[in-house]
This record gives sequence, C-alpha cells and structure tokens, in this order.
Amino acid sequence: MSWRATILTLYPEMFPGPLGTSLSGDALARGLWSLEARQIRDHGIGRHAKVDDTPAGGGPGMVLRADVLASAIDAAADEGDLRPRLLMSPRGRPFTQADARRFAAGPGLVIVCGRFEGVDERVIAGRDLAEVSIGDYVLSGGEIPAMVLTDACVRLLPGVMGAGASGDEESFENGLLEYPQYTRPREWEGRSIPDVLLSGDHGAIARWRRQEAERLTAERRPDLLTSR
Amino acid sequence: MSWRATILTLYPEMFPGPLGTSLSGDALARGLWSLEARQIRDHGIGRHAKVDDTPAGGGPGMVLRADVLASAIDAAADEGDLRPRLLMSPRGRPFTQADARRFAAGPGLVIVCGRFEGVDERVIAGRDLAEVSIGDYVLSGGEIPAMVLTDACVRLLPGVMGAGASGDEESFENGLLEYPQYTRPREWEGRSIPDVLLSGDHGAIARWRRQEAERLTAERRPDLLTSR
Repeated sequence: MSWRATILTLYPEMFPGPLGTSLSGDALARGLWSLEARQIRDHGIGRHAKVDDTPAGGGPGMVLRADVLASAIDAAADEGDLRPRLLMSPRGRPFTQADARRFAAGPGLVIVCGRFEGVDERVIAGRDLAEVSIGDYVLSGGEIPAMVLTDACVRLLPGVMGAGASGDEESFENGLLEYPQYTRPREWEGRSIPDVLLSGDHGAIARWRRQEAERLTAERRPDLLTSR
Repeated sequence: MSWRATILTLYPEMFPGPLGTSLSGDALARGLWSLEARQIRDHGIGRHAKVDDTPAGGGPGMVLRADVLASAIDAAADEGDLRPRLLMSPRGRPFTQADARRFAAGPGLVIVCGRFEGVDERVIAGRDLAEVSIGDYVLSGGEIPAMVLTDACVRLLPGVMGAGASGDEESFENGLLEYPQYTRPREWEGRSIPDVLLSGDHGAIARWRRQEAERLTAERRPDLLTSR
C-alpha cells in the first residue's frame, strides 16, 4: 500500500492545492502516495455544526473543541492505524529533515490543522497528538504547514525523485548547507563561473564544493556545526 | 497603495492556491493586499524557452540560469521598486516572526521560488536577493515556502485580523510559546478544565497563563529563552 496522508481541516478545499502540481502532484497522479482531506466541521455540534467556542478564562479568538476534534480523528484513523498523528502548531517541536526521512519511511501521516487561537489542550493528550512546528513564526492556520510537511516527505518516497537525484548532497543531509551552483553562460554581467568547476578535475571540484559548503554553513548557520 | 506580493515561479498556477482561502483570501478579496504570480519561463531562451542547464562541475539536477532569472526579476520590479527581494532557499537566513512584522510594515515583497538543484549563484549577488529559509528541511520548490512567508505577513496587515486579535499573546510575540487553551465542555473523557480558568479571577488567570507559557517554553524550546 502506498504512503497515505490524511489531513483534518476546516478548509479541505485547500487540498491538494500546490501538492497537486509539480513533483508531488506527479507522484500523486502516479499513485506513489495518496491524499485525503477531511472536513472537521462534519463532526460539529448541533444544527450549526459548531466546532469552536470561547477560551476558558477569557481572551480573544476561538478554541477548537476537544470533543469535535476527537470525533474527527476517530473517524479518520481507527485503532489499528499506525500512522503518526501530528498537530501543526507553532508550539510544537521543530520539524527537521531527519523527521522527513523518518515519516517518509513509515506508512504515512494523519495531520490535524489548527485554526483560531488554538485547540483544546485535552485532545492533544487524549488522542496522542505530536505537536510539530515548521518554524518560529505564526500563520493563519495549519493548512500551509501541513503542505510543507507533506511535500518534504513525499519527495523522499521511492520513485518520486529521478535516478541520481537522491538528495544526498542537499542542504541538511550531511549537516551542511549546500555549496554554490553555477551553469551557462560562462560569463554573465562580468561575473565568471569559478575556474575549478570548469577544470574537469573531479577531485578538486569535490574539495572546492566541500570547502564552500563548510564556509557557508560557518558564516550563516554556525548552530548547525555545533549540533552535528 | 496596498501591500503587494510578486512571486516569480515556474508554477504560477499554484497561486493564489491556499492564499485565496480563509483569512488571507478574504483580505485579498477586500483589497488589503494584492498578489501577482509571474512565469519565469516567459523569459526563457530560444524556441523551447529554456530556463535551466546542467551544473558547472557536474552533478545531478538542473540549475536555473542567472540571465533568465535576472530578466524575470527586472521585468517584475523596476529600479524604483523598494520592495525587498527574497529567494526562498534552505541555505537562507531562518525566517522569524520579527521578519514577518518588518516585511508587513513595508510596501510588499518580491519572492523568487527556486527549483531544481538551485539557482546560479551569480544572480543572487547580481540582483541583490536575500536568501530566506522557512526551516531546516528540503522541499520540492520555493512555492509552498513563498506561501508560508506571504501568509505570515498578510495576517499582520492592518484590518486583516479582527479587533482584539492583535496577535500580541501568540507564540513568539513575547519570546514565549503560547499557554494551553481550553473551551467547553468543562469535562471531557475524564479531563477537566483547570479550576483557575473558571475562577473569574483575572489576575490569577494571567499569572497561570504566564507560568504555563514559561514552563512550556523551558520544556520544549529552551533556545528561545536564552536568545531573549
């Protein structure tokens, strides 16, 4: 069975959206993964399918109800479903390339997209949701973050990237940022391709790229070097 | 004039996509910001509108040409255009909520979406592109990251969020992760809303929320505390 993403959202019409185009869209069309976006509101309460309520203790905004979200999760993933359950949230653990590798090696993901001021804390524990953050900024909802996470995983699935493009030399895969790239023309607005890249000396090219990757990482992201 | 986002991409059909729905889509419809997605391929070379070529020095994948991208940038933003020019790239400086505040206070953004193995290094310097990363993972292109960045900015524009929802208490705005939220029902699957939130004592509620925010941040993201 192929890798399976289930997204719980108040905006299922956002999906597949950008995931239906380009690399992930092509892989979707080829059946290398599947995507299901489920409407949380189908589990809303009463005639108006209410999904949220005011925060206990006061404050602005609305909070997604625990009972509604639990019901939506239970309908999307039964007890035998071994997929990790994630809640996209700026409070979560930062998502990394290692997580993408791990998730891509598993059966798929169930992703809950938060909205409003947040979700009732009790459903996070009650349904074993892992809070995951894509970065230190706040968005209007979890839908675009769910796309980020899904795209990062899908491109690593077997058969999605072409042969030779394993991604092994990409940023983060070896703990370094990627070295600079150049292509034709040889001269552009007075700027040249570094001579070594045109030398045909494969050893020298590999050494230069390694040095450049180390230099860039030290300049821009020294935190990546200390955490290796 | 309203805040203006121009996206340079090989997949303009991905836009507005999720940015056309919900909070940012509503603000787009109300004219609080505008979005233009421009096709880089319109500046491609020759009969096949070639935009990329093989990497100098060898290696897998294709590199976006400097001349093609420069031509697309020049057509999208003339010399009098004061908007920052960003290149979405995992090698870039990590995007933060402070950046979102800063960009939202300006005239808008020009965002270049990378694809393939990368873009020719010379166009980054030649067109003064600031490389920005949304996180330490690799995606199939810069389009979803451009949506992340745009959504983070748009929600901060005047009039986009409702009154009282200034975002001041959100994660990162005060250097802390957000405190837990609860709403009805009072009891759910044996789990209760903390008594203090139902006490009506606003001082006690504010203190509890502050303590919880500090506790969560210390547990999950001690790095945020040391960088304050």
